[in-house]
Amino acid sequence: MKSKEGVVEKLEKHKIYWGSAIFIAVSLAGTAVAEDTGIGETVIQLAYSLDTFYFLMSGALVMWMAAGFTMLESGLVRAKNTVEILTKNVALYAIACIMYMIVGYNIMYGDGVNGLIPGFSFFLGADNTVDEVLKSGGDTYYSNMSDFFFQVVFVATAMSIVSGAVAERMKLWSFLLFAVVMTGLIYPVQGYWKWGGGFLDGLGFLDFAGSGVVHLCGASAALAGVILLGARRGKYIKGRIKAIPGSNLPLATLGTFILWLGWFGFNGGSELKISNIEEANAVAMIFVNTNTAAAGGLVAALLLARAWFGKADLTMALNGALAGLVAITAEPLTPSPLLATIVGAIGGLIVVVAIIFIDKAKIDDPVGALSVHGVVGIWGLLAVAFTHPEGSVVAQLIGVVAIFSWCFATSFIVWLVIKSVIGVRVSEEEEMEGVDVAECGLAAYPEFTKD
Amino acid sequence: MKSKEGVVEKLEKHKIYWGSAIFIAVSLAGTAVAEDTGIGETVIQLAYSLDTFYFLMSGALVMWMAAGFTMLESGLVRAKNTVEILTKNVALYAIACIMYMIVGYNIMYGDGVNGLIPGFSFFLGADNTVDEVLKSGGDTYYSNMSDFFFQVVFVATAMSIVSGAVAERMKLWSFLLFAVVMTGLIYPVQGYWKWGGGFLDGLGFLDFAGSGVVHLCGASAALAGVILLGARRGKYIKGRIKAIPGSNLPLATLGTFILWLGWFGFNGGSELKISNIEEANAVAMIFVNTNTAAAGGLVAALLLARAWFGKADLTMALNGALAGLVAITAEPLTPSPLLATIVGAIGGLIVVVAIIFIDKAKIDDPVGALSVHGVVGIWGLLAVAFTHPEGSVVAQLIGVVAIFSWCFATSFIVWLVIKSVIGVRVSEEEEMEGVDVAECGLAAYPEFTKD
Amino acid sequence: MKSKEGVVEKLEKHKIYWGSAIFIAVSLAGTAVAEDTGIGETVIQLAYSLDTFYFLMSGALVMWMAAGFTMLESGLVRAKNTVEILTKNVALYAIACIMYMIVGYNIMYGDGVNGLIPGFSFFLGADNTVDEVLKSGGDTYYSNMSDFFFQVVFVATAMSIVSGAVAERMKLWSFLLFAVVMTGLIYPVQGYWKWGGGFLDGLGFLDFAGSGVVHLCGASAALAGVILLGARRGKYIKGRIKAIPGSNLPLATLGTFILWLGWFGFNGGSELKISNIEEANAVAMIFVNTNTAAAGGLVAALLLARAWFGKADLTMALNGALAGLVAITAEPLTPSPLLATIVGAIGGLIVVVAIIFIDKAKIDDPVGALSVHGVVGIWGLLAVAFTHPEGSVVAQLIGVVAIFSWCFATSFIVWLVIKSVIGVRVSEEEEMEGVDVAECGLAAYPEFTKD
Repeated sequence: MKSKEGVVEKLEKHKIYWGSAIFIAVSLAGTAVAEDTGIGETVIQLAYSLDTFYFLMSGALVMWMAAGFTMLESGLVRAKNTVEILTKNVALYAIACIMYMIVGYNIMYGDGVNGLIPGFSFFLGADNTVDEVLKSGGDTYYSNMSDFFFQVVFVATAMSIVSGAVAERMKLWSFLLFAVVMTGLIYPVQGYWKWGGGFLDGLGFLDFAGSGVVHLCGASAALAGVILLGARRGKYIKGRIKAIPGSNLPLATLGTFILWLGWFGFNGGSELKISNIEEANAVAMIFVNTNTAAAGGLVAALLLARAWFGKADLTMALNGALAGLVAITAEPLTPSPLLATIVGAIGGLIVVVAIIFIDKAKIDDPVGALSVHGVVGIWGLLAVAFTHPEGSVVAQLIGVVAIFSWCFATSFIVWLVIKSVIGVRVSEEEEMEGVDVAECGLAAYPEFTKD
Repeated sequence: MKSKEGVVEKLEKHKIYWGSAIFIAVSLAGTAVAEDTGIGETVIQLAYSLDTFYFLMSGALVMWMAAGFTMLESGLVRAKNTVEILTKNVALYAIACIMYMIVGYNIMYGDGVNGLIPGFSFFLGADNTVDEVLKSGGDTYYSNMSDFFFQVVFVATAMSIVSGAVAERMKLWSFLLFAVVMTGLIYPVQGYWKWGGGFLDGLGFLDFAGSGVVHLCGASAALAGVILLGARRGKYIKGRIKAIPGSNLPLATLGTFILWLGWFGFNGGSELKISNIEEANAVAMIFVNTNTAAAGGLVAALLLARAWFGKADLTMALNGALAGLVAITAEPLTPSPLLATIVGAIGGLIVVVAIIFIDKAKIDDPVGALSVHGVVGIWGLLAVAFTHPEGSVVAQLIGVVAIFSWCFATSFIVWLVIKSVIGVRVSEEEEMEGVDVAECGLAAYPEFTKD
Repeated sequence: MKSKEGVVEKLEKHKIYWGSAIFIAVSLAGTAVAEDTGIGETVIQLAYSLDTFYFLMSGALVMWMAAGFTMLESGLVRAKNTVEILTKNVALYAIACIMYMIVGYNIMYGDGVNGLIPGFSFFLGADNTVDEVLKSGGDTYYSNMSDFFFQVVFVATAMSIVSGAVAERMKLWSFLLFAVVMTGLIYPVQGYWKWGGGFLDGLGFLDFAGSGVVHLCGASAALAGVILLGARRGKYIKGRIKAIPGSNLPLATLGTFILWLGWFGFNGGSELKISNIEEANAVAMIFVNTNTAAAGGLVAALLLARAWFGKADLTMALNGALAGLVAITAEPLTPSPLLATIVGAIGGLIVVVAIIFIDKAKIDDPVGALSVHGVVGIWGLLAVAFTHPEGSVVAQLIGVVAIFSWCFATSFIVWLVIKSVIGVRVSEEEEMEGVDVAECGLAAYPEFTKD
């Protein structure tokens, strides 16, 4: 998603400042048709409606990604920890929606104090009036509420990334408390730096739909939590790494498909406009590139896993697809479909290596979220330097460092405070028994499991 | 969804009767441009296409809710009764589509005899011709077939509510027979009273997208069935209430997410128009309020369950989200997002209390449908009196009484007739063994269950 | 989906060649408003954007069908073969996307040598420029990239049909190798014959959205594979047919709902345009007919199964819905909704008979794909002769023979080559143990199964 400045610049660059075009057209018409701007205004209204509808459909697709993360994570944990991960996921989505409405959106998109420090106010303002839109000649081209809807599902996505990495051992209420701070403050501040027009945007850091602002942000917060939490019991014993298989791989596969589908809204909607030829072409290109990057990531991860482990590893294939999606998210518009496939495929290779490496480093990430969203998020940001004419390795690196530092440090502090007050990890007994019974009083599959 | 009268009134009130605006614009333009209405007509065509497309996408989202109910219900019943609930759900959707096409749609939206008695005719009429649309100056602004599609998925939703409440003990074919009458007659008649312009609409009863017409209607029919059926064997023994846990909570969670997503079409599409600035803003506001009401309901139910039972009860959280959605459905447009969150949160509190209370009353509702759609449906209707400037407690109460009385009484009679002819309850042996084998000859999970 | 010629002809027939209408309108306006075509051009841009957006949303729905096939198939196989079918499905989708981008799309829609032999070139060309669109006066009315996106998900659908029929016994890598040829060559060539403007289109063969080009094509390729593979071990013993029940029927039901939803994009998007009244009405009619044909197929199959086997067979009901969808796909626009219901219902009856018959013929198709997509695909093509004013039994039969012959013969050869080089069937031990462990090194449900 581009900052508002970015949109204006791009439109000016292309000399098709659409609103102005209408305005000029209407003005010229006015000369001949004597103060009749009726059709011109109706056309502005129609374009506003189409862009708003496009925003809402895109947002709905991104909302659906919450279900994707939920299915993915619940398929990759053990049966005894499934209800808790389900509960965390539905609750974090709800918390994200409420916190972002109360304060997060205003922090991210309000008037900042300066490029580093955002503003602060509560609740949502009024939507555009008809007069405002018509007077803007089409510069104001979609409903503010549709913008909020599109933005709020993004913060939920960032938070969803965290839940997988800390699965099977973190206390539910500690996690939800963290979600309040993450979605109300941590995410919005760094979002302001880029998409709210803050210092990262000023530096030329490019992040179209959020390889950094969403995915690296979520992964950085997750890493802080994972470090404080430690590994699941039985994961690393006497230097040996024990594989803990997921309990329901069809669910994990379904989750991946949901995420893939939702990503068309995530990247496609981040063009922010569809109502003229150039913008429509751009959105279409983004759909194609998003799809093919995922395909590239999947095939690359599947082949590498086959070569490395001798098996067609489904979980690696799924993570490969997600890696392709994360990788292309920083710039899904400028590459050709072939280049997008390659960017995604490199993401797919990286994610396999990262998962193995992070596991060897005894950083226990049950679903591979740190690799998919963190390591590949960085790859996606760096790839922009090679796929976008204005991409700069330096600016991209500054963005990576800024987002990681902010999200990791603040998250670490918040987790630490929570740990010292109510604790972050369930007891050994609860972990052995499964967190479902301890935290939720329910079993996910009471008739299936063999205990 | 507003009745056609309602739409007109609203537009007149706002002095932006869009169709007329175009018409005037075209007329004025005509003065100068000499009988050239080409662009004006093209704009009318475009707006018609956008509104039709918006209707179709909304309808597709509501159709998806059928999958949501199916997953929710199949996750909340025992494994041995899963195939039957799946079969009921897919079959009721199909029956609803056919019956509503044959006769239901005409009952609901045809010319009625009077405000109480609807008309009666068969099959669908022709769609608007190009001439009709252009001559209307944009007053006829979407395809009749898209309207039918949007409406038909609503009746399926109402019927889906019933299947959950009577699960695990009702005969499959008795249920499907009831579905024929419910979707062909019972639902359409009370739908006519409000959305077809009947007496409830005349009285000022407000029900934007169907907290009453859809959700209370379905729950009232379900209650009649539940009373006639009695509780599942083993549910209430010697005054004690036995909890019967659902067999697959990831499915139930998936179902809730599907319903949440589909509700954007359910409420968002019920604005009926998106093609000008005011309507686009309205649809966007509805998306935001629908989402945040669900979030409020989920958080409130989760917290109340935690305080009451000491656990983070996932099924209560899911029902809380659904309660928030049902609560906001009667009026998702006029409240601010904060107020919508509160309306949803109150729904979430109510649903927890209602589920416990209804269970204590020994009314056996395996999925909580009576609470979510019935009790909270009433709350949603009453809340309109406080969130809509023209809401009236009296009119809302009349609506509640009328819809409940009609749906409960007619359903009770129909169930009674079915009971006397072919019976409504499976035999004791079949219930013990599970209805899947008896009714469907299949097991849902033949390799997983422990028997 | 109509060929480009088809679209032009239809528009000319209806005398509402929309682009020209705009062009004329703009020209006339120009007379009075002195070289001001600003609004006219803006309207062309808006229509282009709406049609592109409609294409992208339709394509996203069809992409979602890949998840539908995956869930359907993984629910209908045994637990021990689930990971492998999941892996095949995600990988075939990715392969289809890449191969069709590299070469398939150009074969299908490039300039052919003649009506039989398509052209050959690599990768995607540039999208339409603003100038090209405006100069075309609206004849060029959507983004090329959106067209590619819509087309690429179709080839994935065709390939998804194959995976189910050869499930539980085909080697994973042999299958994926076949997918490369199928999606890069076999599907595109016969696609060219009809939708690319080749000889079948010239002969008057009608196939609106692909009962033949997609479904029969996929089923023919599958049949070749099934014949070469042979039946699963234990399926046919001493002349007796053993039923092998699916392991997870909620997944199969979810898959069917996903396919049903996605089909609105599949058929609805194949109208290729929505931006005027006639086209919007057409898309709406297609949605209604697609939905009701599925409903008809489901009810018919459920009733026939009840009459024949004495049980409400869920898997037959699901296949009945899919059969209704396949049957209406060849012509979802011209029938009335009642006729569409009947076309679907006949499809539902046929599929039950076909599944039993094919099983008796000892052709082992674990998911019924040959019946649903092949036998009912042929029914759908023949039904066009009775539901479309220009339908011809002869032309439809020629299409059936051409598509079947090409797809079956080439597939047979490719499977044969693969068989001779690396083999197509897993070993007896691997099949007994389950292909999941052998091929993927993972279990789908490690904690549930009773082994």
